[in-house]
Amino acid sequence: MIAKILFFLLSLLLAIPSHAQRPRARDLGIQIGTLPTGTYNAITDVEGVLVGHVTLIEGSGELVVGKGPVRTGVTAIVPHGEDIYRNNVFAAAEALNGNGEMTGMAWVNERGQLEVPVVLTNTLSVGEGYSGVVAYMLKQGTGRVPLPVVAECYDGGLNDIAGRHVTVDHVVEAIEIATGGAVPEGSIGAGTGMRAYGFKAGIGTASRVVPDGHTVGVLVNANCGRRRGLLIAGVPVGREIPVQASPTRDGSIIVVIATDAPLVPHQLRRLCKRAAIGIGRTGTVSRTSSGDFALAFSTAYRLPRTRADRDTITTLRDNRLNAIFQATIEATEEAIVNAMCVAEPMTGRDNRTMPALPHDKLIEVMQKYGRRQAQE
Amino acid sequence: MIAKILFFLLSLLLAIPSHAQRPRARDLGIQIGTLPTGTYNAITDVEGVLVGHVTLIEGSGELVVGKGPVRTGVTAIVPHGEDIYRNNVFAAAEALNGNGEMTGMAWVNERGQLEVPVVLTNTLSVGEGYSGVVAYMLKQGTGRVPLPVVAECYDGGLNDIAGRHVTVDHVVEAIEIATGGAVPEGSIGAGTGMRAYGFKAGIGTASRVVPDGHTVGVLVNANCGRRRGLLIAGVPVGREIPVQASPTRDGSIIVVIATDAPLVPHQLRRLCKRAAIGIGRTGTVSRTSSGDFALAFSTAYRLPRTRADRDTITTLRDNRLNAIFQATIEATEEAIVNAMCVAEPMTGRDNRTMPALPHDKLIEVMQKYGRRQAQE
Amino acid sequence: MIAKILFFLLSLLLAIPSHAQRPRARDLGIQIGTLPTGTYNAITDVEGVLVGHVTLIEGSGELVVGKGPVRTGVTAIVPHGEDIYRNNVFAAAEALNGNGEMTGMAWVNERGQLEVPVVLTNTLSVGEGYSGVVAYMLKQGTGRVPLPVVAECYDGGLNDIAGRHVTVDHVVEAIEIATGGAVPEGSIGAGTGMRAYGFKAGIGTASRVVPDGHTVGVLVNANCGRRRGLLIAGVPVGREIPVQASPTRDGSIIVVIATDAPLVPHQLRRLCKRAAIGIGRTGTVSRTSSGDFALAFSTAYRLPRTRADRDTITTLRDNRLNAIFQATIEATEEAIVNAMCVAEPMTGRDNRTMPALPHDKLIEVMQKYGRRQAQE
Amino acid sequence: MIAKILFFLLSLLLAIPSHAQRPRARDLGIQIGTLPTGTYNAITDVEGVLVGHVTLIEGSGELVVGKGPVRTGVTAIVPHGEDIYRNNVFAAAEALNGNGEMTGMAWVNERGQLEVPVVLTNTLSVGEGYSGVVAYMLKQGTGRVPLPVVAECYDGGLNDIAGRHVTVDHVVEAIEIATGGAVPEGSIGAGTGMRAYGFKAGIGTASRVVPDGHTVGVLVNANCGRRRGLLIAGVPVGREIPVQASPTRDGSIIVVIATDAPLVPHQLRRLCKRAAIGIGRTGTVSRTSSGDFALAFSTAYRLPRTRADRDTITTLRDNRLNAIFQATIEATEEAIVNAMCVAEPMTGRDNRTMPALPHDKLIEVMQKYGRRQAQE
Repeated sequence: MIAKILFFLLSLLLAIPSHAQRPRARDLGIQIGTLPTGTYNAITDVEGVLVGHVTLIEGSGELVVGKGPVRTGVTAIVPHGEDIYRNNVFAAAEALNGNGEMTGMAWVNERGQLEVPVVLTNTLSVGEGYSGVVAYMLKQGTGRVPLPVVAECYDGGLNDIAGRHVTVDHVVEAIEIATGGAVPEGSIGAGTGMRAYGFKAGIGTASRVVPDGHTVGVLVNANCGRRRGLLIAGVPVGREIPVQASPTRDGSIIVVIATDAPLVPHQLRRLCKRAAIGIGRTGTVSRTSSGDFALAFSTAYRLPRTRADRDTITTLRDNRLNAIFQATIEATEEAIVNAMCVAEPMTGRDNRTMPALPHDKLIEVMQKYGRRQAQE
Repeated sequence: MIAKILFFLLSLLLAIPSHAQRPRARDLGIQIGTLPTGTYNAITDVEGVLVGHVTLIEGSGELVVGKGPVRTGVTAIVPHGEDIYRNNVFAAAEALNGNGEMTGMAWVNERGQLEVPVVLTNTLSVGEGYSGVVAYMLKQGTGRVPLPVVAECYDGGLNDIAGRHVTVDHVVEAIEIATGGAVPEGSIGAGTGMRAYGFKAGIGTASRVVPDGHTVGVLVNANCGRRRGLLIAGVPVGREIPVQASPTRDGSIIVVIATDAPLVPHQLRRLCKRAAIGIGRTGTVSRTSSGDFALAFSTAYRLPRTRADRDTITTLRDNRLNAIFQATIEATEEAIVNAMCVAEPMTGRDNRTMPALPHDKLIEVMQKYGRRQAQE
Repeated sequence: MIAKILFFLLSLLLAIPSHAQRPRARDLGIQIGTLPTGTYNAITDVEGVLVGHVTLIEGSGELVVGKGPVRTGVTAIVPHGEDIYRNNVFAAAEALNGNGEMTGMAWVNERGQLEVPVVLTNTLSVGEGYSGVVAYMLKQGTGRVPLPVVAECYDGGLNDIAGRHVTVDHVVEAIEIATGGAVPEGSIGAGTGMRAYGFKAGIGTASRVVPDGHTVGVLVNANCGRRRGLLIAGVPVGREIPVQASPTRDGSIIVVIATDAPLVPHQLRRLCKRAAIGIGRTGTVSRTSSGDFALAFSTAYRLPRTRADRDTITTLRDNRLNAIFQATIEATEEAIVNAMCVAEPMTGRDNRTMPALPHDKLIEVMQKYGRRQAQE
Repeated sequence: MIAKILFFLLSLLLAIPSHAQRPRARDLGIQIGTLPTGTYNAITDVEGVLVGHVTLIEGSGELVVGKGPVRTGVTAIVPHGEDIYRNNVFAAAEALNGNGEMTGMAWVNERGQLEVPVVLTNTLSVGEGYSGVVAYMLKQGTGRVPLPVVAECYDGGLNDIAGRHVTVDHVVEAIEIATGGAVPEGSIGAGTGMRAYGFKAGIGTASRVVPDGHTVGVLVNANCGRRRGLLIAGVPVGREIPVQASPTRDGSIIVVIATDAPLVPHQLRRLCKRAAIGIGRTGTVSRTSSGDFALAFSTAYRLPRTRADRDTITTLRDNRLNAIFQATIEATEEAIVNAMCVAEPMTGRDNRTMPALPHDKLIEVMQKYGRRQAQE
């Protein structure tokens, strides 16, 4: 017991210098899958990928539509630091369960390319997300006609969602401040007001390096699942930490998958489908009210918007996809768990509080089920 | 020749009282398909369906982004006069060629229902379209979380599209003013700045009544095709009325299909696919830069958003779908031709003019190819 | 230890009277999910559903193509005891990972109905499977033009697959002998030569009853996954029972889902997608060489092939689907585990042996990971 | 009139030396589309593509199932003369209306490659088609596990289809005798018993060369449409040559598209969708009982089945696809018309006769509608 407490305190200490947030799954000794992670265990381990968050937290107490409390935000995933509209990347997207929105999917899938940063926000702010990407693009140059990719989850449990506090400027800002390196997780950016499995959740990320050296990075906005169903590394954590209150409405999840492996669109679509397996392993049943979407892109090539009529590319054979599939599943699963491990509890509209996943209890459960032996 | 002129003048005269617009295809003696039309030969022939247009025309001369000239608008198609969010209808949607946007497709197809009015506007105003539907819904009642269906075509050839002159209020207005009866066509609403086959085009509509009495109505925003390819009732009109200028960028088309036939979602999806045949018969090749989308809904049932756990419905067998397929193809083809017949020429940004389809020349060509015998 | 041995012996004893096969997952104290099972914990718990197996085991020793050894078979799933061609049921099918074949999917999905028994067999015998269904149908009456649903997995690791020992008559027989009640599992019918996660596997089945009384039954032909990845109820069994030999080619899985819940086709398709989650929970990554297909049908209605032009049906609302989704996931996961628990070890071509999942070791691992407490 | 007769006789004369069949559309002065054809105006204009027909015609008079009359066959389209299983080509397939079967689609689309010759035959012989491809592959080498692509149309109007006269050997033969050069059309191979628009039809082919030099070739098995709907080059031929008898059951069409343009799978899928436009222009509504499938492949690259882990390819940009789309539409439309122009009348089971499209009447109608001016 003392060992556990010490470890937990140590985890917290170790976590503070890096990004001043609660420890992530691995910091707590939870191992998901078998492939090694990249440097930051984040989507930004795929070279060039940038992430930007704009977090909106304001007010407290009773909900007054248009006033607050505000618990929402925007997260932008930028495939590379160049002009993405002029230098597209191969991409694919898939609705795993479509009670939600990811705009731009038709064009991504028809053409097999991504021409915009991917923007995440709340359900009722998709319009501002869309116009924000348009505004960002028009700032870059005239004559652009982008088809934005904006995906949403519902944060109305904590946030004055009907107040639509996200503006076009917030969206432009999230894109412009996007950076590489460690990615802040939990209640930040589009994840600010989200919860998963009855715990505060939101943004999570993870990465894997496959044997041939390619990296797969995943970023999720986790807002899915019911407490009872929660599985962490296969352990029925949800049944062991039952919820007091009545079950919340179950929500959605957005999964963005980046890789430097040279994949063409029909291969990237297969990565999106693997995201469903990673999500499923955390215990969701993808209920009817869930909006579960995945988008995958490869940074291996730039497809420039020039008059040239051909691209020469080197692409991986099918037999090299298996490790990348496994990496996608593992990173998706871990990203969701990270979102819950990192997120702090939050109080929002009408003083509703969403609790954080209790680390001590989690560690106890993992031990009970024969995990985390090494650390003791 | 005199007969022709007289007929043409007569057509114009007959057309004025009804909706003060240029004659439609049938007024010109052009017969498309064999099934009879409904009363108005419009999507509103499907009982309960309403259409609203907000047209934005302002300024002239040189393009100054944010100032104008403005040649754009919004068109709303409302499935019925009740609260659509509380009384959904069965629906399906399909991307025929995905270089464009129709938001909300994932949820429409996952659930098989439509919960919002369908909104059409220009490419860069999808965000405002989206927020407009949200605003409209929140006006109706709190706690609503709609997933809007907003579809776009590009009108930047005539319109200051980057100026994004469509506002949330315009969208709410288009929904609120929607009415039944004859539907104004051509350069109106979302069709204001559109062109097809090198002619001014935009909104067009048509309907068919199948032998068992059900009605199929189609409304298009026609912005597709190149002059050379134009076919009207199979006649190569585009080759007979060649274009002087260089070919314009070819664009997109949105097809909205309404029916009172009791169809379930997987059947409605098949109607969407038939729209591609109707479009194809007007001569498009659905070029890579084309955003061609179809959405179909059935007004036969209301699926109320209540706690009830079952719906009892009577649905048509497959063997009754054939006439409805034919109706969809015919009405789609005629709606496109109507858009071109009705639209007036328009001058927009930088004094660019998009000519109207010349009726006299059209009639001449149709006669040359053995059509329009009856009228002479 | 003694308790464990006693329990194991007891399990075997209890298992013998019912169907003379090794114990199933539940007999071993392994609990998957939380919903209750139907009477037989089998697809046949959905009233009317019948299953028939024809098992072909012949010869041993060196492979001589066309001679043997033969380790293959046919399994037929018959939706109900009436003439299925004249009394269709609503259905949907989905390729989860398409390195395989399920014929008939296009028609099932276009029309939303199933008109034939579903036949499972080996990869190179799909032709005979197809002709077998045709032959069965023509026996029932002239003028029938069925589009068979035949799905395959590869059993060439043990079986003389290139010898194509399955005949049209075997297929007809499997359909004709199909019965309700307890379903034999493991190395039987189409499962005869299959293996999963490096263990002998094949046919498995399970069922769940949802709170409103509807039953979901699943039958799988499990031939998927690699040893290392195997998860049972979330426990990393594959890492705890490592494989001696080099990994076998990983294969495929077919999932057939039956329910008496009144679902229409677009809802049934959503059940197929949930099968992927159930499969994923057993640890597969659905490798590129995997042919993973799901088909779901509802027995709630007969859609008779008559001249009638309408069907009246009562169908479940979306909000009632969640329990059915969960049931599908749980039953799929358990059916796969059942296939492995029940299958005996088998020696086939070139004296290759596929070991059975060792029950004692399995129980030990489950205990180590905090499962199976109750039985001790 | 004399000119017409002379022209017709001349056409026949010119036609005889080449392949002893009735004249094709172009021989009759019918021009479809604007792009130039390849040398043979056939799928074989795509270098390397081979076509083989096995035609089964036997017996006459009353139908005795199993005896005859036999009016059926097999057509094989072989992408290139090398070992296709070891040297795959990029491919995609699409069900345009799924009342029919094209096996192998799941794998073609998942992997984006074609590993087998494409085989066409009648509906009830798909099993033999499948086994025939397996048999062919096993002849080439042991250890092969192909997933055959077999597509069907219904020829039971003339043929003893329930007698299943196509054997595995016929299928192997069709593949083995496949050759390049002019392709016999009409009532040959899989087209033997087919009819379209109330006329004898079957196999038809055509090709187009796009401005950048790439060739698109199409081969169809045309068995679709009703007389009333028939359009040829936009002319309502079906209404001008009405049918005496009651309408036959309308059927299906299979479209195989070959190109030497270097396209990747998601691009080839777009070609399949354009086939629907080509079919639609001949007047079908793709009725519910129609099984309309398209498959497209590119011969530009061989994807060898070796241990290599990468392929380097040069692929066309989207902006170069438009001409290829147009070529696909034109060649599909012309291939269907060719099938009808070439096919001789045929008498089959129960002395049912399917008339040929009467060339003199066709020419007359085309003239009436302002086509075929040049020849007079």
